[in-house]
Amino acid sequence: MKVLITGGAGFLGARLARELLHRGHLRGQRIERLVLADRAETGDAALRDDARVQTHMGDLLAQIPALMAQPYDAVFHLASAVSAECETDFDLGLRSNLDTTRALLDACRAQAARGGPVPLFVFSSSVAVYGSDPALPLPAVVDDRTLPTPQSSYGIHKFICEQLVADYTRKGHIDGRAARLMTVSVRPGRPNGAASSFLSGIVREPLAGVEAVCPVAPDTAVALASPASTIAGLIAVAEATREAFGGRTALNLPALTVTVQQMLEALREVGGEEAVRLVRFEPDATVARIVGGWPSRFDSPRARALGLFPDRDFHTVVQQYVRDHRDAVRNTQALASA
Amino acid sequence: MKVLITGGAGFLGARLARELLHRGHLRGQRIERLVLADRAETGDAALRDDARVQTHMGDLLAQIPALMAQPYDAVFHLASAVSAECETDFDLGLRSNLDTTRALLDACRAQAARGGPVPLFVFSSSVAVYGSDPALPLPAVVDDRTLPTPQSSYGIHKFICEQLVADYTRKGHIDGRAARLMTVSVRPGRPNGAASSFLSGIVREPLAGVEAVCPVAPDTAVALASPASTIAGLIAVAEATREAFGGRTALNLPALTVTVQQMLEALREVGGEEAVRLVRFEPDATVARIVGGWPSRFDSPRARALGLFPDRDFHTVVQQYVRDHRDAVRNTQALASA
Repeated sequence: MKVLITGGAGFLGARLARELLHRGHLRGQRIERLVLADRAETGDAALRDDARVQTHMGDLLAQIPALMAQPYDAVFHLASAVSAECETDFDLGLRSNLDTTRALLDACRAQAARGGPVPLFVFSSSVAVYGSDPALPLPAVVDDRTLPTPQSSYGIHKFICEQLVADYTRKGHIDGRAARLMTVSVRPGRPNGAASSFLSGIVREPLAGVEAVCPVAPDTAVALASPASTIAGLIAVAEATREAFGGRTALNLPALTVTVQQMLEALREVGGEEAVRLVRFEPDATVARIVGGWPSRFDSPRARALGLFPDRDFHTVVQQYVRDHRDAVRNTQALASA
Repeated sequence: MKVLITGGAGFLGARLARELLHRGHLRGQRIERLVLADRAETGDAALRDDARVQTHMGDLLAQIPALMAQPYDAVFHLASAVSAECETDFDLGLRSNLDTTRALLDACRAQAARGGPVPLFVFSSSVAVYGSDPALPLPAVVDDRTLPTPQSSYGIHKFICEQLVADYTRKGHIDGRAARLMTVSVRPGRPNGAASSFLSGIVREPLAGVEAVCPVAPDTAVALASPASTIAGLIAVAEATREAFGGRTALNLPALTVTVQQMLEALREVGGEEAVRLVRFEPDATVARIVGGWPSRFDSPRARALGLFPDRDFHTVVQQYVRDHRDAVRNTQALASA
């Protein structure tokens, strides 16, 4: 089968690609070709060197005709302008997220219409669809039936694309499934300017021997998922039968609820006092308000029914990070323990 | 102030126009100009003859640049491809409902950006956003927090446009409010091919002395609003302060829950046995399934807070129809009583 990953050079896209290549199959079919589409070339040499991998660079919206000249059996649509970009540039957000997704859906529909496969279409939506509308505050525990009231353009775009995916699926143009990703922590790399960036930074930076700033109070609760859980979620959603997925409404992937304090305790367990001392609390009212508006507790029965559970605890998540990114870790205690 | 109504030649658009002209003001400002945009010229001579009224004919998407060359203080966006059209022609639905709404929102945003007024933007959404996803069945009573899971392209488009209206509002490009209209009954005119068409037809046709077919069982419960209540809802939503409207999430207008049996009892009270005898039950499984998927009971606290309540009973609704459309009524008992 032929698989396309948009955003394939991004952190999650590359991790999904590695996992798919490692498995070698999807939905019982051998993966013969894996196309990674992104603005930039993938930095992962192992991916580039895999004979099954083909990379495709450029602006996704502009590239769709060329990219979709070959038929796909499965599309993982991960490419997206991030929340900060969408807030800064309203038109860019609409173009990158809404227009691009619609064009990609139309290309899939055209593929099916000309006798090609009706592609599996996994759309990575986001917990960002849940914002707190003061007139309709979120319940203490969010579940698959909770009405999203997005409070950012990014959340709006994700929620709109969920609807498009549902309708293209209903009409038989694709076999679409939208899964809402939780805040992924610990992300490798550099801070990315997102309000959630510190939720990786307060672990990643101290383990690299670098100071990190935490802009929220220690008792702030957040809903997280490790990179491994997130990728497992996307693959389980892709593997599910339509009956198992249940309807056409987006599904919340599982979330681990932790406080910042609990995150730092896990950091201490893995990296010692030396690591935790590198985290400086510097309250930022804006970030605290944004993060405080995010739901922190989830009950996700649809994900459970697919065999998906939250990460066990944040200690395990930190260990996963150290194992996966030893090069970026300077903390000797952490390196020794993982 | 200058007011634009899209779909201004339609039944609700024309009724809204007449009501606005009768009031003469909106949000404390005198209405100096009322532009009715529609594919067709309005059939209402009184509207055409009013010096404040300007009509604008043509495809809305194509006409937006010309139409929006003058600034508006308020826009009522009622124009829409109806559900049956959207199901038949996927692209037409996307173009008429999604692309047109976005272009209209962008024109409003451009107006504000060049120093013109930030327009009030009332979007007529629909109860059609509520479809019954078998995996997430609707609760027995739908309220403002119920997650819409649209099961038609029309419902999907309405729900998507609600999100766009919310985000353009959040960014300050418009002062947007989305109100979900219930099934309007009794509509005048001819059957329109919508699955809900019979909900007007089983009253309108018998009162005109014409036979009507009822495709569902007498105990089928439906959620209705009279034309007058619907227009009152749109105006109350326009008049509300942002605080009174509450957040940026779409609001459900009030609904009267009645069974088809109760509708026919009201018809009997107004038009006598002679009228009811003209209704023939002819079960249609497809229509019964569609109508059965619609929510029939609503609790709408946000509408109540704006002073909006369901129609008192269906008897009153039938009398309203007879009073408003005496020309279309042949039933002498009804004409005498209204």
